[in-house]
Amino acid sequence: MISIVILGAGNVATHLYKAFSNTESTSVIQWFNRSLDVITPYKNKVDITDNLNTLKKADVYILAVSDDVIAELSSQLPFENRLVVHTSGSVSVYDIDKKHKRGVLYPLQTFSKNSKIDFANVPICIETIDKKSYPLLKELTTSIGSPTKRINSDQRRVLHVAAVFVNNFTNQLYRIGHEITESEGAEFDLLKPLILETSKKILELSPFKAQTGPAKRNDKKTIKKHLKTLESKHHKDIYNLLTASIQHTHGRKKL
Amino acid sequence: MISIVILGAGNVATHLYKAFSNTESTSVIQWFNRSLDVITPYKNKVDITDNLNTLKKADVYILAVSDDVIAELSSQLPFENRLVVHTSGSVSVYDIDKKHKRGVLYPLQTFSKNSKIDFANVPICIETIDKKSYPLLKELTTSIGSPTKRINSDQRRVLHVAAVFVNNFTNQLYRIGHEITESEGAEFDLLKPLILETSKKILELSPFKAQTGPAKRNDKKTIKKHLKTLESKHHKDIYNLLTASIQHTHGRKKL
Repeated sequence: MISIVILGAGNVATHLYKAFSNTESTSVIQWFNRSLDVITPYKNKVDITDNLNTLKKADVYILAVSDDVIAELSSQLPFENRLVVHTSGSVSVYDIDKKHKRGVLYPLQTFSKNSKIDFANVPICIETIDKKSYPLLKELTTSIGSPTKRINSDQRRVLHVAAVFVNNFTNQLYRIGHEITESEGAEFDLLKPLILETSKKILELSPFKAQTGPAKRNDKKTIKKHLKTLESKHHKDIYNLLTASIQHTHGRKKL
Repeated sequence: MISIVILGAGNVATHLYKAFSNTESTSVIQWFNRSLDVITPYKNKVDITDNLNTLKKADVYILAVSDDVIAELSSQLPFENRLVVHTSGSVSVYDIDKKHKRGVLYPLQTFSKNSKIDFANVPICIETIDKKSYPLLKELTTSIGSPTKRINSDQRRVLHVAAVFVNNFTNQLYRIGHEITESEGAEFDLLKPLILETSKKILELSPFKAQTGPAKRNDKKTIKKHLKTLESKHHKDIYNLLTASIQHTHGRKKL
């Protein structure tokens, strides 16, 4: 049985707490947060604390806190030579105080507060400095059903940027689709099946092979019509840049 | 029983042929294409022809052909005052020769050649000039299980542009995610669950509410790290423009 202390109470911390509490091979023995309010509802299920000096001895301490406080919090932990990991995509593993054994569990998924998470859909990227810590972290993440992948710092860095493109930026394109359709009283809902299909397509085809549309076909007439339809300069700028990007990828244009 | 003649043999034409052949309330009585080769495999199931002068009398003629040839083909049809529709998102209904009753059946979905299409996931936008043609087109599209929506030309125009944003441009963001991850030997596959979740999220939340990430949080430190990670100027340009777009939407920045 792997014993775990979770530090932090945001979305990732809460989802990890729930997941690790439900396995047979792991046990969350304590939950720390600066403010007890948020975790008080769990006090009958797990030992809660807001005092670092009362932290119990555990196999692994998971710092699921804001990027900005990882370094400081790790240096404040009143022990050394135990395994301490953070869950951030963009913070270096070396930001954790060097008195600890250090690692990262980076879950590559978007977490909403209230929706249930199936960890089978949450790949967890594992990074460790010493090789010995890896098998324990692998066992930990496998226990909640996550696909796992050992990666290095450079790979985590690019995965985090790529996640912004496929998640935040994609969602902004949905937002713009919403703005454009509503401007004429058309329903954004009509686009939802297309949005789902576009994402499902890349399960079978590479994004390169999946591409269609006027930019790829170099259909200048339709591109011109679209630019005429768009009223906002801002929408036009995005249209032009992504059209050029597609044409570059498919050999129509040099950037 | 509504009788249909299909003209054209691309993805949309082929999927529509298969769908309309499988209902009890519609019958494809003829399939026309300039070149017989492509439709010859269907010759035992439907009357095929490459000669416009042999077209049979039908309730509706569906021109599922390239945008560029809709006007010409419609004027070449050797009859008048019958219902003729095209399936394009960007061509005016008035491009169809005015000797016909005119309409549009615009399926808002991406069609791949070989994959099966469930028309329950293909909203069809209906546009007609004369009101009398609408009920027949409504019955036609409902027969294959498509959600239908009556729209006007302006709405079709904005839906078509919005479709480019949520489909072609989104797919290009996947492509860039692929380029960025592969540059460090990280696996693009790790991003697939995130891609699926991002699209599913908007079934329940508006894109405005679903937004997360460094741009929305105005997390300058992470944005700076990301820009440093990106090697290509082109990727940086897209990162900057879409970050500004998110910040504009969420009140952090004027454009």
